[in-house]
Amino acid sequence: MKHMHYTEVEDEIPAEEGVKDTTIRWLIAEKDGAENFAMRIFTLQPGGHTPLHAHDWEHEVFIVEGEGKIMSAEGEKSFKPGDFAFVPAGETHQFRNTGDGIARILCLVPYKK
Amino acid sequence: MKHMHYTEVEDEIPAEEGVKDTTIRWLIAEKDGAENFAMRIFTLQPGGHTPLHAHDWEHEVFIVEGEGKIMSAEGEKSFKPGDFAFVPAGETHQFRNTGDGIARILCLVPYKK
Repeated sequence: MKHMHYTEVEDEIPAEEGVKDTTIRWLIAEKDGAENFAMRIFTLQPGGHTPLHAHDWEHEVFIVEGEGKIMSAEGEKSFKPGDFAFVPAGETHQFRNTGDGIARILCLVPYKK
Repeated sequence: MKHMHYTEVEDEIPAEEGVKDTTIRWLIAEKDGAENFAMRIFTLQPGGHTPLHAHDWEHEVFIVEGEGKIMSAEGEKSFKPGDFAFVPAGETHQFRNTGDGIARILCLVPYKK
């Protein structure tokens, strides 16, 4: 069993275009034996955001800390700790930290077979 | 996009043997269009626990709130908020709330094809 605190995992700068003041930790991934899906946690500084994009896999998201907005085809919705979201494959989405503190967002993605 | 607070989801008593003072909310599941994996959150009252068991699918776990112990073949390890764990398929495991407050544990499981 892999069991750690998330802060023990290296915090990396995503290579992706459209990211601002946001880092990612890969908590559980293929290298750990996870064959079906991966667990990551994003840290967004105040004003930071993920890219506004769409892709052919889904997200399962849980807000651990902070407040902000989820942008999508349905418009803009506020998020707070304890919120969760299912972003279906193909849906445009973006997470923005609009609060004064850090936002931490757990985001899980499938490994497509 | 499904987007809610976890408290808006019905809290159910698991049918499983060996569960004590523990409830489950299915946050993201097949009914929501999630084909690859499901997100659930367990609420353990003080003294509550999940079953001591093993099964042929993995768990990806994130501790949202509370303190307790993870029992496994490797023995007993403490957990606290921000901890995560990967429980491989086939490994015996149990989550126990040994604290004075409620424990909330996010636990994701694959839909096996």
